Amino acid sequence: MSVYDRLRELKIELPAVSRPAAAYVMAAPGGNLVFVSGHISRRDGKVVTGKLGAELTTEQGKAAARGIAVDMMATLHDFLGDLARVRRIVKVMCLVNSTQEFTEAHLVANGCSELLLEVFGEAGRHARSAFSVAQIPLGSCVEIEMVVEAA
Amino acid sequence: MSVYDRLRELKIELPAVSRPAAAYVMAAPGGNLVFVSGHISRRDGKVVTGKLGAELTTEQGKAAARGIAVDMMATLHDFLGDLARVRRIVKVMCLVNSTQEFTEAHLVANGCSELLLEVFGEAGRHARSAFSVAQIPLGSCVEIEMVVEAA
Amino acid sequence: MSVYDRLRELKIELPAVSRPAAAYVMAAPGGNLVFVSGHISRRDGKVVTGKLGAELTTEQGKAAARGIAVDMMATLHDFLGDLARVRRIVKVMCLVNSTQEFTEAHLVANGCSELLLEVFGEAGRHARSAFSVAQIPLGSCVEIEMVVEAA
Repeated sequence: MSVYDRLRELKIELPAVSRPAAAYVMAAPGGNLVFVSGHISRRDGKVVTGKLGAELTTEQGKAAARGIAVDMMATLHDFLGDLARVRRIVKVMCLVNSTQEFTEAHLVANGCSELLLEVFGEAGRHARSAFSVAQIPLGSCVEIEMVVEAA
Repeated sequence: MSVYDRLRELKIELPAVSRPAAAYVMAAPGGNLVFVSGHISRRDGKVVTGKLGAELTTEQGKAAARGIAVDMMATLHDFLGDLARVRRIVKVMCLVNSTQEFTEAHLVANGCSELLLEVFGEAGRHARSAFSVAQIPLGSCVEIEMVVEAA
Repeated sequence: MSVYDRLRELKIELPAVSRPAAAYVMAAPGGNLVFVSGHISRRDGKVVTGKLGAELTTEQGKAAARGIAVDMMATLHDFLGDLARVRRIVKVMCLVNSTQEFTEAHLVANGCSELLLEVFGEAGRHARSAFSVAQIPLGSCVEIEMVVEAA
């Protein structure tokens, strides 16, 4: 079953990709690796803002992380032309906008990790770091970047 | 002298490796690089918690970073089968759970960097970033990830 | 026009490189990639300290990020011997020392991204993450690391 079949089965439609206004790009190649820029949480074109541990629950953060995973797949589809070229999701870094007391960044990150595993199978099993930061651009609740090996 | 000889000389025994419960792994390959997941601080199976600049001193944080370096070597040993396959420790990122006033993340990170240099010799000399974050999963005082080149 | 011509045109002189005191280096190779250590903000040899959203404005942070980009080019020049060996700036990670309310880390990061684009042209267009952290070593206002593909 192809990656696109799995996405269809999960009723996930890849959105239009973000176009950064500034002097950077959403993904760049480094050897056979692809470095995907930090993606913030957006729903219906609006940034999903708020701090975990204050305005948002862990479940809401996890849903945001899942949404970002979808957006990153859209970026990869755009960059690679075909998601079948993903040989492996190598590394995910998940930043959580939280209070100084919130200790569940790893549970938030699972929203991204679990979807990557569902969509890419074993090729989606990645190394990961998750932690809480003081703020994220535009007040986004979560920001995720990743490194992918491409064929 | 092999890496294992140096570990013996330093009286360091590699612990059992952590097995992540979630949809990720402790290390993943990306070309000839190995991306090691963020490791938190554990002692006798318990997470070492606390904020630098409040509950913990820089020396305690440095000791935690050294302990994480040992755990990451255990992960690498498990992943590569033989630490002799480490061609170079390429990059370390050290996150310190601290107050907003604590400016010694680099001294904390030295606990990891110095041990890697002792154990791997020149192959252990790496690029590095160290900084303070708002929180770390499970309240860990330090989290470290790294990138390694393997033969 | 060479990278050095562009630097001259921009009236940018590469400074002497920092020499880390500790067990790490300012840049390390990983396959055909070069991992550049986190560089903090320095002017006339002194660390530029302060928190964005409190003591420093976004414009001041952006200027600091631009200065760090110059320092990182000096590090790369020292490491590679010739900046013409830069095939691509692959990835930039920009950490901003800010209050928990400051949501413009991306505008700060533009100070670095825009200069890299000016100097390296299309080869300077990189993937990027930017976010706010609780603190940075020595109280620096900004810290930036990058990944570069070298020929």
